[in-house]
Amino acid sequence: MSNTQIKLAQRPVGLPTADTFNIEKNPIPVPAEGEVLLKTKFISLDPAMRGWMNDARSYIPPVGIGEVMRAGTVSEVVESKHGKYRVGDILVGNAGVQEYITTDGRGYHSVDPKLAPLPVFLGTLGMPGFTGYFGLMRIGEPKAGETVLVSGAAGAVGSIVGQIAKIKGCRVVGIAGGKAKCDYIVNELGFDAAIDYKAGNLRADMKAACPKGIDVYFDNVGGEILDLALTRLNMHARIIICGAISQYNNTTPVKGPANYLSLLVSRAKMQGMVVFDYAKDYGIAAQEMAGWMQEGKLKSREDVYEGIENFHETFLRLFSGEKMGKLVLKV
Amino acid sequence: MSNTQIKLAQRPVGLPTADTFNIEKNPIPVPAEGEVLLKTKFISLDPAMRGWMNDARSYIPPVGIGEVMRAGTVSEVVESKHGKYRVGDILVGNAGVQEYITTDGRGYHSVDPKLAPLPVFLGTLGMPGFTGYFGLMRIGEPKAGETVLVSGAAGAVGSIVGQIAKIKGCRVVGIAGGKAKCDYIVNELGFDAAIDYKAGNLRADMKAACPKGIDVYFDNVGGEILDLALTRLNMHARIIICGAISQYNNTTPVKGPANYLSLLVSRAKMQGMVVFDYAKDYGIAAQEMAGWMQEGKLKSREDVYEGIENFHETFLRLFSGEKMGKLVLKV
Repeated sequence: MSNTQIKLAQRPVGLPTADTFNIEKNPIPVPAEGEVLLKTKFISLDPAMRGWMNDARSYIPPVGIGEVMRAGTVSEVVESKHGKYRVGDILVGNAGVQEYITTDGRGYHSVDPKLAPLPVFLGTLGMPGFTGYFGLMRIGEPKAGETVLVSGAAGAVGSIVGQIAKIKGCRVVGIAGGKAKCDYIVNELGFDAAIDYKAGNLRADMKAACPKGIDVYFDNVGGEILDLALTRLNMHARIIICGAISQYNNTTPVKGPANYLSLLVSRAKMQGMVVFDYAKDYGIAAQEMAGWMQEGKLKSREDVYEGIENFHETFLRLFSGEKMGKLVLKV
Repeated sequence: MSNTQIKLAQRPVGLPTADTFNIEKNPIPVPAEGEVLLKTKFISLDPAMRGWMNDARSYIPPVGIGEVMRAGTVSEVVESKHGKYRVGDILVGNAGVQEYITTDGRGYHSVDPKLAPLPVFLGTLGMPGFTGYFGLMRIGEPKAGETVLVSGAAGAVGSIVGQIAKIKGCRVVGIAGGKAKCDYIVNELGFDAAIDYKAGNLRADMKAACPKGIDVYFDNVGGEILDLALTRLNMHARIIICGAISQYNNTTPVKGPANYLSLLVSRAKMQGMVVFDYAKDYGIAAQEMAGWMQEGKLKSREDVYEGIENFHETFLRLFSGEKMGKLVLKV
C-alpha cells in the first residue's frame, strides 16, 4: 500500500513531455487529530493546469518544482479524525494528482453522490460548469434573441455555456474541431449551428452561422478565432475571456487580437473571468444547473480515462482536440 | 467672395499626403427658408478624422471621395432664415473643413461665447472634453486612491482625463512624448507623475510611476504602451479604449495587445467608447467641467494655427507629437 504521486519535475516549454513529471510512490500519510485521510476517486484534467506549470504571475501561484501537480478531485473519506466528516463521505476539492492526502477539510466541500455520478462534480456541477454559468450569466448577460458564440463548444465549459444560452432563449453557435464534435453540439446539445474550425473556412462559416452578428462571445481558445469574432460584433457586445487554449503551449509570444479596435467601433467590452471569484454563489449555480439536468435541458458528458500513471498522456488529450465533454482521470 | 473647401481627393495609405486633399473655391451657398448660413470660425483637428478617411466599417460612415472633409467646427451665423437662430449666434457642430455651409440647424447647438474662448468649445467643452469625461467617469469609474494611467496625456482628451481623475482623488500618471509635455502635465496640470515614452525606458518607468499597479488605464494610443499597461493591471482594472493613434497610419496590420490574457488574470475589462453615445448627457458634462474651470481645477489649452489652406500640414501635427492640448485651425 503506497501513495502514488505525480510531481512537477520541470517547467515545460510548449506541450508537457514525459520529463515534465515524476511519478513517485510514497507512504500513505496519517491523519492528525481534526483531519481526514482522503482517497482520490477522480481527477479533473483542465486546460488551466497548463498555466499553473508556468513560473508566471497569474491568478494563483504556479505549482512549485517537486510539488504534487495541482488538480481538482473527487475523493472519499477513508479514515476520519474530523468532527464533521465520516468514512465514506465524498469530498470535492483540490487534492492534486495523487492517490491519498490528509486535510483538515479547508478548501473541500462534501457532495451528495446520489445527485449525480461522481465525475459530474468535476464537470457540470464543478469548476467547468460554474465557469460557464457565471461567465455567461454575470459577464455575458445574454438576452433572449441575441446571438451567443462559444469556442471550445464541445468541451466541459463550452458545452455548458451553449446549453445555458439556449435555455435563455438565444441563438447559439458553437465552434469545435471536426465533424463528430460539431454533430454532437447540434444534435445532442441543441446548438443552433456549429462551425468546424478545422474545415478551413472559418471567416465565411462564422459569417454564415451568425447572420445577425455576435452579441456575446465566450472565448476559450484565443488566437485566430478570437480575432475573427471581433470583426462580427454587434453594438455593446460582450466578450468573456475565459481561456486561450490555442496559446497555452506556445513557444512564441501570444498572438494578441489585432482586431481589438472593433471594441471601440462596437462599444463592446472584453472582460476576463476566473471562477473562484464566484465561490460564494456556487450553491446557487449548482442548484439551478441540477434542476436543468433533471428537466433534461442540460446534458453532462464526461470522457473518463483510467490510471493515475497515465496522467501525462491523458492530460495531452486536452490539447489534441481528441476529447468531448469533461476530461476526467479515474484513479 | 468664395467658399474655400477642403475635399477628400483619395484615400491615404499611411499618413495623408498633399495628394490626399483638394482645395476648391466654390460659390458661397444661399440659405433656403428655415436655414442659416454659417461662417466657420474654428475647425477642430482630431485623430479620429484619420479613421474617417478609410473605407472601413466603423462607428460612422467614411468620408466619400470628393466630399468635404468632415470636421467639428465653431461657426457664426452670418445670414438667417431660421426661426431660432440670429445673425451673430455661435453654433457648434460638424460643418467640415470649409468656410461656409447652410444648414437647418440639425446637428448643431448654440453656445454662449461669454462662457469661454471659442476654441474651448472644440476642446474641453467639446468632443475631446466630453470623451475624457464620459470615458473616465462611466467606464473607468475611478475611486479615490486608485491609480489612473492615461496615454496621450498632454493631448486634448488625455489632459482632461488626468485632471478629472485628480479631482476624483486618484494618483494620476500621464504618458507623453518629450520633456516639455511631461513637465507640462506635472507642473501645469497637476499630474502626480509623467512617463516620457520617447526616453526609451517605458517598462521600467511605468513600473516606477505606478508602484501600486494600475486601476484605470485610459488608452489613446494602442501599440506597445497598451501592451505594457496590461502587464501592470490591478484586480478588476478597467481599460478604456478611446483610440489608437500609434496605429492609425499603419500600412501594416494593427498590432494586437499580446498581453490581453492579463484581463483574465486580473479579472479586468477592456471596453471601447465613442463619445456620441453620451450625447444626451453632454449638458451635464459641460456644466460640471465649466464649474471646474471656474474654480481653477481644470485647465484648457488650445494650440491654434491659422488658415484653412494649411489644413493638411496642420493636421499632420496630430501625429508628429508636436502639439500640446487641443489642435485647432482658425479660419
